[in-house]
Amino acid sequence: MHLTLDLDSEIPIYLQIRDRIVESIARGEAKEGDPLPSTRQLAADFGINFHTVNKAYDLLRNQGIIRINRKSGAVIRRDAATGPPEPGFVEDWEERMRVLLAEATVHGLDREDVARRCAAILAGFAPGEKAAL
Amino acid sequence: MHLTLDLDSEIPIYLQIRDRIVESIARGEAKEGDPLPSTRQLAADFGINFHTVNKAYDLLRNQGIIRINRKSGAVIRRDAATGPPEPGFVEDWEERMRVLLAEATVHGLDREDVARRCAAILAGFAPGEKAAL
Repeated sequence: MHLTLDLDSEIPIYLQIRDRIVESIARGEAKEGDPLPSTRQLAADFGINFHTVNKAYDLLRNQGIIRINRKSGAVIRRDAATGPPEPGFVEDWEERMRVLLAEATVHGLDREDVARRCAAILAGFAPGEKAAL
Repeated sequence: MHLTLDLDSEIPIYLQIRDRIVESIARGEAKEGDPLPSTRQLAADFGINFHTVNKAYDLLRNQGIIRINRKSGAVIRRDAATGPPEPGFVEDWEERMRVLLAEATVHGLDREDVARRCAAILAGFAPGEKAAL
């Protein structure tokens, strides 16, 4: 798994780690059952504190995306093929989507533009499939 | 402006205030030039600290959505009719949209479902317009 972090960004590093791993799974580069690097390895690679990586992994575990055990370390727990979302996920996701779509609207993006940009992003996740948006 | 906050939510109150105001503008209930309640008024209405409301208003100002001056207080600075987004907005918004769409993909929502849900949300913002998604 290749992760790119922006150490100068306003977005906290642990969130960047989380976001990049989620995107990597969405693009099919990492699949259910694949191991993640150890927190110490990832911390060493980026020259960051391993507690920062721990925080990202804890968040991913709380969101049901990875599991962590003492023997095998962090492993991806779900991807697009795993099955339908857990109860409560869609409601939470729609709340956040509502805010993000509201922001685009307030800043003057029209619906066609929003739809086109979302379709382009989704098309990037599964290159083999045809965009449905 | 009618705001509903969930004081038991994991989402910080200042973010909830920000999110509800953005949604209110997106729905056309609040428009460019409309005044917002004073921070002390809003704090009193919800029984929360006025610093919390200040934090929400500061965030809205930093995002170009409201302006604040000593005389007239907080006023909405932009809505969908104000014009195209400021430089940099779309890039930042697409970054956040990419993460949110990746999450939906990882959790097993397919594209048709994502598109349908986004269309329904956007349709709720401008009841007079026809959904384009």
